[in-house]
Amino acid sequence: MAFRDHLERICGEVEGSVACSVIGFDGIAIDTYESRAEGFDIPTLLVEYTTILNQVRAAASVLQSGQVRELVISTDKLTAMSRPLTPDYFVVLALSPDSNWGKARYMLRVTAPTLQREF
Amino acid sequence: MAFRDHLERICGEVEGSVACSVIGFDGIAIDTYESRAEGFDIPTLLVEYTTILNQVRAAASVLQSGQVRELVISTDKLTAMSRPLTPDYFVVLALSPDSNWGKARYMLRVTAPTLQREF
Repeated sequence: MAFRDHLERICGEVEGSVACSVIGFDGIAIDTYESRAEGFDIPTLLVEYTTILNQVRAAASVLQSGQVRELVISTDKLTAMSRPLTPDYFVVLALSPDSNWGKARYMLRVTAPTLQREF
Repeated sequence: MAFRDHLERICGEVEGSVACSVIGFDGIAIDTYESRAEGFDIPTLLVEYTTILNQVRAAASVLQSGQVRELVISTDKLTAMSRPLTPDYFVVLALSPDSNWGKARYMLRVTAPTLQREF
């Protein structure tokens, strides 16, 4: 399977999904699946999210609090949550703000090992 | 009741709580309750967290995605989650990474109106 198939499966399982991407900490996406992304500028969202995630990694280093496991940013229009896959890449899921966080976190957690094997 | 009492109640209800604070977006805390904060530099944590939250607010503005509702940062040693209270202040809860996110989010949500009335 390609990355795209796994990303599509995550979006299919999590109600309210908008888009899902495997992306580098340099902000360059390997692949992105957009399921309901009308009205959202997903490429800009991914760049902004990656910038913040890098700032979070830097802060975690300052605080000696270990590796970043998850980052969730929820705004009025969109929630974005991520999980690291390798030292260089992570998976991020954008979904509507009132979606089921538990299901989204679960799908990212169980799909992460499969995505890691694609590298 | 003072802020401190509400913060202590949140920590008492959420297993694995480390500290809870009402803090300004300028990084200056009104009050902080530390329940199990040994080994954590809570003041530095709050400053770093506030810096990131401000970056998230700026990004949300760029993306026109509305107000920031929640920010959750989870690392190997600590999870921190927050909720805005006023345009100038928010409540943040630090807890052990494997704590119950649902309970923590619930307690922040139901306590927020009470904290808002203290201003």
